[in-house]
Amino acid sequence: MEVKSTSPKKRSKTRPLAASGTVHQHIDEQRWAYLRDLVRFLEIPSISTLPAHKPDMERAAAFVREQLTEAGMQRVRSIDLGGPPLVVGEWLGAPGKPTILIYGHYDVQPVDPLSEWQTPPFEPDIRDGNIYARGATDDKGQVLAMILAVRAQMATAGSLPVNVRFLIEGEEEYGGASIERYVREHADEIPCDAVLIADTHMLAPGQPSIVYGVRGMLYTELVARGAAHDLHSGTYGGVAPNPLHALALIIAGLKGVDGHINIPGLYELAQPVTDEERGWWARQPGDPVARLAAEMGVDVFPGEQDYSLPERMAARPTLEVHGFIGGFQQEGAKTVIPAEARAKVSLRLVPDQTAENVLPLLQARVAELTPPGVTVEVKNIHGGLGMVLDVHNPYVAAASAALAEEFGRATVFLREGGSIPIAPLFAAQLGAPVVFAGYGLADEGLHAPNEHFNLENFYHGIHGTVRFLQHVAEVTR
Amino acid sequence: MEVKSTSPKKRSKTRPLAASGTVHQHIDEQRWAYLRDLVRFLEIPSISTLPAHKPDMERAAAFVREQLTEAGMQRVRSIDLGGPPLVVGEWLGAPGKPTILIYGHYDVQPVDPLSEWQTPPFEPDIRDGNIYARGATDDKGQVLAMILAVRAQMATAGSLPVNVRFLIEGEEEYGGASIERYVREHADEIPCDAVLIADTHMLAPGQPSIVYGVRGMLYTELVARGAAHDLHSGTYGGVAPNPLHALALIIAGLKGVDGHINIPGLYELAQPVTDEERGWWARQPGDPVARLAAEMGVDVFPGEQDYSLPERMAARPTLEVHGFIGGFQQEGAKTVIPAEARAKVSLRLVPDQTAENVLPLLQARVAELTPPGVTVEVKNIHGGLGMVLDVHNPYVAAASAALAEEFGRATVFLREGGSIPIAPLFAAQLGAPVVFAGYGLADEGLHAPNEHFNLENFYHGIHGTVRFLQHVAEVTR
Repeated sequence: MEVKSTSPKKRSKTRPLAASGTVHQHIDEQRWAYLRDLVRFLEIPSISTLPAHKPDMERAAAFVREQLTEAGMQRVRSIDLGGPPLVVGEWLGAPGKPTILIYGHYDVQPVDPLSEWQTPPFEPDIRDGNIYARGATDDKGQVLAMILAVRAQMATAGSLPVNVRFLIEGEEEYGGASIERYVREHADEIPCDAVLIADTHMLAPGQPSIVYGVRGMLYTELVARGAAHDLHSGTYGGVAPNPLHALALIIAGLKGVDGHINIPGLYELAQPVTDEERGWWARQPGDPVARLAAEMGVDVFPGEQDYSLPERMAARPTLEVHGFIGGFQQEGAKTVIPAEARAKVSLRLVPDQTAENVLPLLQARVAELTPPGVTVEVKNIHGGLGMVLDVHNPYVAAASAALAEEFGRATVFLREGGSIPIAPLFAAQLGAPVVFAGYGLADEGLHAPNEHFNLENFYHGIHGTVRFLQHVAEVTR
Repeated sequence: MEVKSTSPKKRSKTRPLAASGTVHQHIDEQRWAYLRDLVRFLEIPSISTLPAHKPDMERAAAFVREQLTEAGMQRVRSIDLGGPPLVVGEWLGAPGKPTILIYGHYDVQPVDPLSEWQTPPFEPDIRDGNIYARGATDDKGQVLAMILAVRAQMATAGSLPVNVRFLIEGEEEYGGASIERYVREHADEIPCDAVLIADTHMLAPGQPSIVYGVRGMLYTELVARGAAHDLHSGTYGGVAPNPLHALALIIAGLKGVDGHINIPGLYELAQPVTDEERGWWARQPGDPVARLAAEMGVDVFPGEQDYSLPERMAARPTLEVHGFIGGFQQEGAKTVIPAEARAKVSLRLVPDQTAENVLPLLQARVAELTPPGVTVEVKNIHGGLGMVLDVHNPYVAAASAALAEEFGRATVFLREGGSIPIAPLFAAQLGAPVVFAGYGLADEGLHAPNEHFNLENFYHGIHGTVRFLQHVAEVTR
């Protein structure tokens, strides 16, 4: 992409002019250079779930190493964990100061349906102050902002106020099994006082937000088998098992029109929501109905009507079907009853639901719902833990202050509906609080066509991360 | 394909040796030549539903014209109806004798899933007395048998005992709209006394069978639309409409685990089954459970347990889902909630249910079952009439006698579950009885991988059609 002179806008309106000679002035001066780096990052089609993109994973890892080196990090290297490399680097030149482990991922989701993209997903395009490309907000834009914050600080001050370690992985969208194993096995080699993750989103434009809870995940494939071979619906319709119909019956049985998940024992595993949380959600600025209507393009919100929108989106488990495989899917008509069909079904989980304790409940319920003549196997594709953080610690306080300063408004606390399975693992293995300070927006099309990242938020992410590191040095003094 | 000398077997065991110098001896002498013609026909991938195969449709039509010409037919030509050509030819050299219109189709079903074929679908292979290829039994093998019967008769006697007209179409598997229009508009140009259709199957190997009923069809696509664009199930799971889940709910609502179709008014449209028919089905030779178990590879037969297997397979309406389109269908995991999803749903209908009177019932029921936040459109892909024939006429009597003679056993009367929409149209437009004298077997994989045709039945089809034309000349004398 050619970076055109009409964009990005020169300065954020929410932040005062940076004082001359400061790191913030330096960041403002480097806007174009940083944008060009972002474009280069977004041009790499690093889709971790598709084996054909293996060389692109290597290219993306090399880009991250280059950026970390440019930022003055030491011991920058790729660690081979079997899949896409884990890229690490560190700067430990502030003895006696806390060490912040900064985590992000350089892999991206697949792009289908490609036809719905207004511009090609790996040819970044800037429109209306946003940069459009797969991975723009999830997570390349946010990862790069954190690296650039460190680079700007090093370029202007020659040092950082605290120690940092980067762990940037390449298979988050594929389940992140390798880094989980790495963290379990090498926790003692990466000691830290807190973990910073910028892979979440703000409540609304300009509203600084700290996510204190994420949902867990169980992603399964239901494999339904009927007759020994495909059958003609004319000859055998009326006596033949139809695996696609069986999957429809099962999925309708798992979740009804009321949004309630009919898996006995599932809700009983959930930690109760606290009154403090319900208070935060009730006082959230803005109108969630209007915001969701704008983001989603709908005016009704199916699901459990007895719960508030924020609770349904982040603190209740959900069940979704993502795709059916099998039978006839082309134009026209074919009257086949397939011998086998599959469905991708996932659950978002809330603590203390886990992939491990929910899978047997799901399997038992699917067995119960399976109609005669069909067998259904529930395959565990991947799972991840959710978490609810204790927000009362100096690192969350530092992040809250940094964000409030950068955006000029009080920071709010949110639960997010998505899953960041590595976060609970960091907390457990490293004994360190996790700080989610995200700069994305919910409607930036993550995992969907026309993914984008607001460029002002890209720069806010750089400034805000600088402020965070400074606040950490102060509040932990 | 090279035709190897190990097959086919030389003679059928069920028929006495043909007398020297007769048409039947001639057919026996021509077995290899006829088989080579069948192989050439099956090598043409004439898949009418896939636009890429348009040139193959032309090649298949040319082959049929060549065969009709070879058989001594006159005015052999293709008629352009917009899609694949309708091939016609006639011999009207028996004044005062009845005219038989012989119908069949040269197009075939798609071949997916290709990976399940033991040999490539358009490289005919002979194994265990069967010829394997897409279209072998449906309908190229049966069409060619009828043409070869006429060719053998002309070659030995120089004339036919009755007049014949051939109408061989190329879009039966795609809905057959063109020939239906042709028959409606040109009925007066193709007067006939009876219609012969060989596109049905026998009850069991060696059991001569006449089908007197076929089901009708309504093939639809349900198009479900939710949010304005694809959504991430983490961010929006719990409040987002999911068109795939909506389709699962709707399909589960349309047909439950008991096989009953929950569309108000549907069953009320059906003609009652007669006691005479239930008697025929009850006296059917063989064990339907054992036969179906062998054909389908299952030991339970889901569906309406209050009805007999023959009734459920041919005299009850059915509803099947054939495929879901939308969302994520590759290996691995993607947590997308698609903005749009579609499902292919068909109903097999029994007289007097029609696509026209059932579609509004289906649409009303789908509207009733559609969950909030989703809109669902029911698109009519194609439809066709079913029929139940009056078997008490000289043409069915001729076919019954011919088949009994050819196979050496009494002919049975069946309803078939599949749809041959042109048949009721012929009956209505031409005012002529329709005779279904089929030589296929139900387990020959029609519309499925590894389709095949029993070679002995191919030759029975040639001999049997010769006998039918002779019996027609006699019984209508």
